[in-house]
Amino acid sequence: MMPMLSAITPPPVPALPPMLDLLGIAVFALTGALVAARLRQTFVTVAFFALVTGVGGGSVRDLLIGAPVFWIQDPLVAPVCFAVALIAWFTPVRWWEGKLLEWADALGLATYAVFGTIKALAWGVPTVAAIMMGVITGCVGGIVRDVLAGQPSILMRPELYVTAAALSAALAGLGIALGLSAQLTWAIAVFAGFTMRGAAIHWSIALPGHAGAPED
Amino acid sequence: MMPMLSAITPPPVPALPPMLDLLGIAVFALTGALVAARLRQTFVTVAFFALVTGVGGGSVRDLLIGAPVFWIQDPLVAPVCFAVALIAWFTPVRWWEGKLLEWADALGLATYAVFGTIKALAWGVPTVAAIMMGVITGCVGGIVRDVLAGQPSILMRPELYVTAAALSAALAGLGIALGLSAQLTWAIAVFAGFTMRGAAIHWSIALPGHAGAPED
Amino acid sequence: MMPMLSAITPPPVPALPPMLDLLGIAVFALTGALVAARLRQTFVTVAFFALVTGVGGGSVRDLLIGAPVFWIQDPLVAPVCFAVALIAWFTPVRWWEGKLLEWADALGLATYAVFGTIKALAWGVPTVAAIMMGVITGCVGGIVRDVLAGQPSILMRPELYVTAAALSAALAGLGIALGLSAQLTWAIAVFAGFTMRGAAIHWSIALPGHAGAPED
Repeated sequence: MMPMLSAITPPPVPALPPMLDLLGIAVFALTGALVAARLRQTFVTVAFFALVTGVGGGSVRDLLIGAPVFWIQDPLVAPVCFAVALIAWFTPVRWWEGKLLEWADALGLATYAVFGTIKALAWGVPTVAAIMMGVITGCVGGIVRDVLAGQPSILMRPELYVTAAALSAALAGLGIALGLSAQLTWAIAVFAGFTMRGAAIHWSIALPGHAGAPED
Repeated sequence: MMPMLSAITPPPVPALPPMLDLLGIAVFALTGALVAARLRQTFVTVAFFALVTGVGGGSVRDLLIGAPVFWIQDPLVAPVCFAVALIAWFTPVRWWEGKLLEWADALGLATYAVFGTIKALAWGVPTVAAIMMGVITGCVGGIVRDVLAGQPSILMRPELYVTAAALSAALAGLGIALGLSAQLTWAIAVFAGFTMRGAAIHWSIALPGHAGAPED
Repeated sequence: MMPMLSAITPPPVPALPPMLDLLGIAVFALTGALVAARLRQTFVTVAFFALVTGVGGGSVRDLLIGAPVFWIQDPLVAPVCFAVALIAWFTPVRWWEGKLLEWADALGLATYAVFGTIKALAWGVPTVAAIMMGVITGCVGGIVRDVLAGQPSILMRPELYVTAAALSAALAGLGIALGLSAQLTWAIAVFAGFTMRGAAIHWSIALPGHAGAPED
């Protein structure tokens, strides 16, 4: 007898076009693979980092909202992360040190923050929690990557990273709440988050930090 | 079609009164927000820490026992964590440096350790594993907070913290196993853990550590 | 009313003999308990590390594939981890510093990598993702142990550890895909991973790391 889980019919989630989806996961996976390569790790570790960074955020989101984890039953996602690890392993790291990867990551960040929010809303999650699911989808893969690598995580840098994901997720939640069309919501929310993150890359914009405690 | 998950009827769990529940989450969230503020983080990071610390332990417990994650469908928990982040951001850190927060945290620790144990038992988890769910409910939020902040976690300090949670959880498991009334079990278990943690705060009591290996 | 979860009928998973299963978990738990003991932690922390290291990998696997978490409903697994913590606490650390524990860990690593892969396949997970579930089953407990202890994780050491798990998991996936009998698949896959890990222990074999970036 099959496990009952396979009987869960997920609600229709406005999906990303499959190629775009895999491309986004590949970009995240590449950032993970490169962190491991720069730390002079072995191929197996590079592949592990690619997978964790590529699918970590979406996995945590799916576990929290009670959805089947998106990549487990998918025949392509895990192989794509593995292929990215091979590419990262056999190409010089400096190929990937230009701004192109950072811009691609910015687009992935904004896109997944919106996607995560909309998927959570489709599963019946209230708006504020759904926005947090969007932030988690965009950022948690990178946070786990940084914790495993023992480096200061994107969460702790003043750079506008998590904030850009939060902007995209909040606008997506707002757009749906206001009854905007899915297309318009996607366009506005991705554009805003991508622009904020792009501005942060281009002008090194950072948010002000808390002043800390007086005696610090 | 709605996902099947929404058809899960949770067993009746002796619930905390709603206001007390939100208050407990708010206290945990505040300890998370303050760690981020002391590290001079941005508002977004302060809010992320508030959420993770406030709901982390209960989320891991619910995932492990197969219950829907408690705060995802709740319209108030996520906004409360967000409001706590705003309060932490706009008030001076030194307001929160007295003992009051530590005592409130001690009460939250004991209460959630008991609550987590009883919820797990209600979901059919055997006693020893249920007690561990209680410890996880009380402590995991703080452990994740400390790992993300890169500071020595409450798990690794000799201070009676995890131990107080373990005392409350064990007494809760024992009380239910012995057939004591729910009220009496709650009262004894919360009181004992809170007293132990309070004694640790007041007299800086620590457990003896292992002697380590001879050559260390 | 009981929660619906209890109605999930798991697919028949080629199970480990119960005593072997508990022995494997106990070996992992012991490595966790000893890390905490060497760090001169308290008994409660030693017990926490025993549990996390003993059941961490299988818990993440079960959450990802949508299976009930294996140790939650089991009346023996949590008590075994607790008993291991007691043993680690009351015996001298040097008892455990010979090679025996390392070889037992090697056998546990290979066995659980195979078991995790086969369980995931039985739950309908495609081959590549199932192999990753095998690696996760074998390694994640140790990775979480090392992150919590603030020490460089097994993931980041060039030593053949994760690689041996990957070899066992890949051979298990391959054997099932090729239609080999379950017995033969188990035998080949466990033997290969155990031999690789054993060779790494005996001759300190390490994989070559990535050259890193030129300017590093």
